[in-house]
Amino acid sequence: MAPAYKLTYFNGKGAAECIRFIFKYGGLEFEDFRINLEDWPQVKTKTPFGQLPLLEHDGKQINQSVCICRYLGKIVKIAGKDDWENVEIDAIVDTVNDFRLKIMTIYHEKDQERRKTQMETASKETVPFYLSRFDAIVKKNNGYLAVGRLTWADLYFASMIPCFDMFSGGDTFAKYPNLKALQNKINALPAIKKWIDQRPQTDY
Amino acid sequence: MAPAYKLTYFNGKGAAECIRFIFKYGGLEFEDFRINLEDWPQVKTKTPFGQLPLLEHDGKQINQSVCICRYLGKIVKIAGKDDWENVEIDAIVDTVNDFRLKIMTIYHEKDQERRKTQMETASKETVPFYLSRFDAIVKKNNGYLAVGRLTWADLYFASMIPCFDMFSGGDTFAKYPNLKALQNKINALPAIKKWIDQRPQTDY
Repeated sequence: MAPAYKLTYFNGKGAAECIRFIFKYGGLEFEDFRINLEDWPQVKTKTPFGQLPLLEHDGKQINQSVCICRYLGKIVKIAGKDDWENVEIDAIVDTVNDFRLKIMTIYHEKDQERRKTQMETASKETVPFYLSRFDAIVKKNNGYLAVGRLTWADLYFASMIPCFDMFSGGDTFAKYPNLKALQNKINALPAIKKWIDQRPQTDY
Repeated sequence: MAPAYKLTYFNGKGAAECIRFIFKYGGLEFEDFRINLEDWPQVKTKTPFGQLPLLEHDGKQINQSVCICRYLGKIVKIAGKDDWENVEIDAIVDTVNDFRLKIMTIYHEKDQERRKTQMETASKETVPFYLSRFDAIVKKNNGYLAVGRLTWADLYFASMIPCFDMFSGGDTFAKYPNLKALQNKINALPAIKKWIDQRPQTDY
């Protein structure tokens, strides 16, 4: 029987890797469908808003990676135990995503002069601003991003590290011991470790 | 007794109006705390990530407007009835927010030449791309953005209309009959109508 879930994305980690992490962590079967760039224009017309990732389940389609992660996080039981815990998880995830978007906007900037200035501001201001706060939050939260235990926020965050490292050109968390410990802890989870070892090798 | 919820934002609609709409719709008391711009530097240091809106409840703080709306949407019973309905609501809200951010990025662009080009692309491509899809979704969903009935996604969307109109310089939904009908329907809800009539008059 085909898996109940089909995930469509490009052949890369990007915005789909967080979804794959949660599938793998929870031991849920899914089809990891990776399209070739030459097929994208044709696939694009079938997506709700011209974007990937896309999750298909039971004849229905859902876009928006963070929303897909929240949905799966509940199913594999790494969500909050009540509404307040869930909003705490949701808020840190959206903040991690703000940080990711700020970085990616610079990465995609085509004007080289502007990009250079933005890179400087980012490494002097944006990156330390966010990472020092995330580090303090993890310290306060028993080694996790929210509610004092492992949630989908941690898997979301850990799945983005290759993207952060690509941007910083090195070990982004070297100066942030609590984030580094969280990274190591997530990467050592058996299902995640196995996935990282086996996943298709891609740059980002 | 002071209200259980305190919402802090600037004296404007912006990213806090969606939260106010849900409070008002649900008849939940809240303190609508609006700071003066000269107090912002000092308030900023007390926010988790230097941003507003901020919701305080029971000695705890939550940032991220969309997450606050989701949390309140559950409390006032305009959320989904199961996980799949919730992910459908979440995905359309994040897509509305993508659209809002694309528009606001252009609005805040300081390079006038670049801004002009981006405005042209937005009105020829981005705006019709999103609005035609939202319009079709509302048509298919019994006059609402998701799951065939009123949810917090509709209040979220309707609260953003002044921001869309400011950007388009007119009646953004004039060419989109289903969005226009949704706008009129939300604005006619007694609690929302009363709030729009009574709220502090601000440009955006």
